[in-house]
Amino acid sequence: MVLEIAQIDVKPGMEDAFHAGVRKAVPLFRRAKGCTGMSLQRSAEKPQRFRLFVQWDTLENHTVDFRESADFQEWRKLVGDTFATPPAVEHVSEVLKGF
Amino acid sequence: MVLEIAQIDVKPGMEDAFHAGVRKAVPLFRRAKGCTGMSLQRSAEKPQRFRLFVQWDTLENHTVDFRESADFQEWRKLVGDTFATPPAVEHVSEVLKGF
Repeated sequence: MVLEIAQIDVKPGMEDAFHAGVRKAVPLFRRAKGCTGMSLQRSAEKPQRFRLFVQWDTLENHTVDFRESADFQEWRKLVGDTFATPPAVEHVSEVLKGF
Repeated sequence: MVLEIAQIDVKPGMEDAFHAGVRKAVPLFRRAKGCTGMSLQRSAEKPQRFRLFVQWDTLENHTVDFRESADFQEWRKLVGDTFATPPAVEHVSEVLKGF
């Protein structure tokens, strides 16, 4: 299991539009191969900064299957205009569960 | 509920020492006021990069209660020597649960 963390800084004033776009995009992720969950997080320190957390079975489910799909274009259509800068995307795996 | 994301780049070769230090630190977080969970994530793109995810009831449980506690000093004693750079810490809250 891999967690995609996409850090997205949104243009000032576009926060609600971005949030609404992510909401509309939920079905795209729900039907994406190997995608097992998603949530949107908002920064306390920088309210224009969001982090999209997307859970994938494998790294390639995101980097190949999703990114090369028509739904990826659809996703970008829904939210791309609200991005202040290109998203910073990284993938992590849990190596220790404390509690 | 607030999720602390502490991005920590570890000195080359210190990955195992860092991991062991975090493991030893679990009881410190378990007894910290308002701390409801913690896990350690490792980057797929940069294996020397970790993210500590710590769940707190409130922001202040981390920034005031924990950081001003003796256990914070203990935490830094366990892992501080392995840090390549100061941790980048940010707090996020979930604003949308897709699925």
